[in-house]
Parts: sequence; structure tokens; C-alpha cells
Amino acid sequence: MSYLGAIEAGGTKMICALGREDGSVLESVSIPTTEPARCMPQILEFFQGRGIDALGVGCFGLLDLDRNSQTYGCITTTPKLRWRNYPIMRCLQDALGVPVGIDTDVNAAALAEATWGCSRGLGCSIYITVGTGIGVGIIVDGKPHHGMIHPECGHIPVNRRSDDPMVRGVCPYHGSCLEGLACGPAIESRWGRSPAELADCEAVWALEAYYLGQALCSYIYTISPERIVLGGGVMNQQQLLPLIRAEVNRQLGGYIKGKGLNDLDSYIVSSSLGGRQGIMGCLRLAADALEEVQHGS
Amino acid sequence: MSYLGAIEAGGTKMICALGREDGSVLESVSIPTTEPARCMPQILEFFQGRGIDALGVGCFGLLDLDRNSQTYGCITTTPKLRWRNYPIMRCLQDALGVPVGIDTDVNAAALAEATWGCSRGLGCSIYITVGTGIGVGIIVDGKPHHGMIHPECGHIPVNRRSDDPMVRGVCPYHGSCLEGLACGPAIESRWGRSPAELADCEAVWALEAYYLGQALCSYIYTISPERIVLGGGVMNQQQLLPLIRAEVNRQLGGYIKGKGLNDLDSYIVSSSLGGRQGIMGCLRLAADALEEVQHGS
Repeated sequence: MSYLGAIEAGGTKMICALGREDGSVLESVSIPTTEPARCMPQILEFFQGRGIDALGVGCFGLLDLDRNSQTYGCITTTPKLRWRNYPIMRCLQDALGVPVGIDTDVNAAALAEATWGCSRGLGCSIYITVGTGIGVGIIVDGKPHHGMIHPECGHIPVNRRSDDPMVRGVCPYHGSCLEGLACGPAIESRWGRSPAELADCEAVWALEAYYLGQALCSYIYTISPERIVLGGGVMNQQQLLPLIRAEVNRQLGGYIKGKGLNDLDSYIVSSSLGGRQGIMGCLRLAADALEEVQHGS
Repeated sequence: MSYLGAIEAGGTKMICALGREDGSVLESVSIPTTEPARCMPQILEFFQGRGIDALGVGCFGLLDLDRNSQTYGCITTTPKLRWRNYPIMRCLQDALGVPVGIDTDVNAAALAEATWGCSRGLGCSIYITVGTGIGVGIIVDGKPHHGMIHPECGHIPVNRRSDDPMVRGVCPYHGSCLEGLACGPAIESRWGRSPAELADCEAVWALEAYYLGQALCSYIYTISPERIVLGGGVMNQQQLLPLIRAEVNRQLGGYIKGKGLNDLDSYIVSSSLGGRQGIMGCLRLAADALEEVQHGS
């Protein structure tokens, strides 16, 4: 067994872990996401001298994941100004001297679900986190999908429900894109209380399911995943998942049938990895980076 | 060189062709898409005794493209009742005794663009046809993407423009999905004249570009293609493409930058294969089917 490092680099905290290629986490710490000059030394301190064979990073973005690019492994566009254009992968590689694998935080989680979780054994699946933002990771042919940049389909345009009381969604770039209308802060902004405090308000969750169900239909028509896994803080509202399934069924309008759509209860599911999907995915990225160095890609 | 057959199976006509693996078409006929009992013998008559080595079919759908399915190569859901559940691939294979490759009509066109057209050499690209319907083919890692079923993202939900005079779109399944609001018949239904007759009406094309631009943003966020190729009858309106590019730029809101997005004129383009992208893609499907038989997949 190898000894692997993992960093789940989020907007508020950096979870650093030591673990194995079977996804087991042996030890972890949480470091606040301050600016790089303060945060990176704390991260390096955790890993230095621990003898890791490789490191995997699942990072907020946007990221440059083009291996032929001069800025491969850099954070590019982000509202966190200090992290804009920050070469996070190269800094870690230079300081730790081990192979580093990097992908988006949500692609890492999607990879964990495809490796050990609900999407195990499936060629094409997606993972959606609904929390402070909305992020989507996509697996095609067992690998995280990138394309030109990488999926950012938390920001797709959606059809607003005419009785939505919110005039403009909270996305600083698009206003009323999916994230702008359906992320946790959008719920709080619209109804004046946090999602947890609104647990008993049916109207809140019906509207949330309308938007998330619509997004899932869009992903089903575009990616055609074999399974959809949902995670993130907003999904802790247990009443939400059945409402999303009902909206997907209603909004598909019977156009696509068969396969997973015959059984939405097992097609649209909650993560089975108990919140560890992000960090486990980073361990898988580390294992893949090590494998690539040892055996070529 | 091999001698290949190709069928571009559309809703109104079946284009049957003989050609080569370099995409060259040697001979072709157009057969009206009546019912299978009448149409299939005409198709078989064209190919029988011609000595083709393999056949490629790009077909309207939905299709079952799951090779492990008992109904692989069948048309499944379609408004054309006589073609519903029709085993088109097996019928052709049995009658002609050659390997048959099948995919959606738009995946075939996307494959032709990736092989000989605007998307040559790119790993991830999409082809969109805007005509009687709206169809999208997706190439990932150089291969047509399927996932659970196959892309059907002409039917994604879209945000209606508040001043759109059409009360309900023309999609029989969803009403006001993208296809329902932006296909050729939607334009004709909304404005009372055919797209060609409306060429000089700025309002028509501004609204059309609003919807198509929105869809392209959605595909960019989800698939992150390296190039987007547009074809189909509605795109014959030359004024439309620049308007779509402008809408994409506006609606992305500066959220994703760099790469292709720095030069939308070469990122969002018209097909360069002069309407032959569909049938050429079928020749590529035939060549791939032959290759698979000769050398294993």
C-alpha cells in the first residue's frame, strides 16, 4: 500500500489528509482558507516529513487542467483575489517533491462516488453539491471530464418560476443562474432565514426542487448520466430529495424513458460516502498521479 | 480502400450513399421516410449486390445504443408510430450481412466534423442542428458520447424572454423547451411566416439568438467543448451566427474566460462540410464498424 496525501481545497477550509489508495483516511486536519502566503505554509507543515508517495488536490476554481498549458494546475478565475492565478499544483509539487494530481473539488467527489460510492462500476455519472455554491463533477468513461476547461454547470441558465419572490439571484456573475437561484445563500436571501431554519416550510422546498429538478433534467438531456449523486449542505434537508425526483419525473414529460428513469429512487441518490467523497476523491487523484509516474499514463 | 454504405435516416427522408472511409461519397439517393414496410425494401434495394464491406447509420431517435441491451440498435421513443421500437440495425445487418455501426444522426454529424471538419483534432466538440427540431451530437475523447441513453439536449429547459410573444412552444413533450421555442417550426408558429421569409426581421433573429445563445452557454458550462459547430436549415440565415456569438458573450457574463472564449469567431462556427456532415459521419460509423470486426474493438 502507498501512503498518500490529499487536499480538499474549499472556499472556507482546506482539509488535508493522509490516507491510502483504498480511500481510507488515516489522519486529517482542517486549515482555514486564508490567503496563500499564510495558508500554504500550514498545509506544507502538515505534509512535510510524513513520507507521502503522492498528493491529490481537489480544488475550488476555476482551474487550468490542460496538461499542455503553461499554467497547468493553476487556479484561474476566482472571486478570492489572493488565489487568482495561483499555481497551487506547482507550489505543492516543488515543496513536497512528489507527484501531484489535481482536479476540481466536484470532479474529485464524482470520482470517489465512481470508485467507492453510489456510481461504482458505471462509466458515466455525475456528482452535484448544493451548498454555498452549486458544483457539478462529471465522469465519462470512468474518468473526470474536462473538455476545454472543466464543467461549471452549477451556472446554467434556468427557467424562473413566475411566482419566485426573489427578484435577482445571488450569483455575482449571472444573477439568476441555477446557483444564483438555488444555492444555500439564495435560499437564505429569498426567505430571510437559513435552510435549516426553513425545514418545515413546504413552499421553500417545492421551489428549491423546481430549480434543482430542472437542472437535473438539463444534465440528463446533455450528459445522459447513468446515475446522479447529490451532496452538500442544502441536501441535508431530507425532505428535498424526494421532491427533486418528483420534479425530474414531471419535467421530463415522458420524453426519455427506460433504464435508470424507470426507478428514480436509485437513479437520483444521496452520497453514500458520508461527506468524505471530496477527500476520498483526492486520495484517488493521488493514487492516479503515482500510477502515472510509475507506469506511464 | 473499403467500399462503404451509409444511411442518414431522418424524419422526412432517408439519404442512402456509397462511399469511402475518407468520407468521399460516390453515389447517393434520397428515399422518403414512409413506414418501415415500404421504406426498408427501397433502402435494401439500393445496397443489395453493391458489395459494401460495412454500413453506417445515423438515425433519428431516440435509439438504444447500449451494446449489452437486447434491443441494441432499435429506435425506441419517436412520434413516428410505425418506427417505434423498430430494430433498424438488426434488419439491415440481417438483410445485408455486413457489419453495421449506428448512432444518432447528430452524433454522426459531430463525428464527421471531428474527423474531417471544423472540429478535426479536438478531443471534445459538439455539433448542433437547428431545423425542424434541434439536435445535438457530442464528442468526448474523440468518440460520440452516449452515457445512459444519448444526448438529447435540444430539449433542455430555457429561461423564456419575458417579451416572447409565443405563449407555448411547439415541443409536444415539453412545450417551451429549447426546441419548442427555437426550432424552425417554432419560428414559423410565433411569427406566422417561414424563417426564410423573415430574413429581414431583426426582432426574429434577436430572439432566436437569445435562446440559442442561452443553450450554447448551458452546453459550454456542462460539456465544456473545444469547439461548437452549428448546422441545419435555420442556420442558413447568415445573420444569425454573429448574433448567437454576441449572446453567448453577453450571457456568459465574463465567468469563464480564456481558450476558445477569447475568439468566439473560431469557437462557434458553421459546418464546413456543406451539408454532407451527416452522411459523411455515417461513412465514418461504417468504417469504425468494419475496423472493429477486423481488429476487435
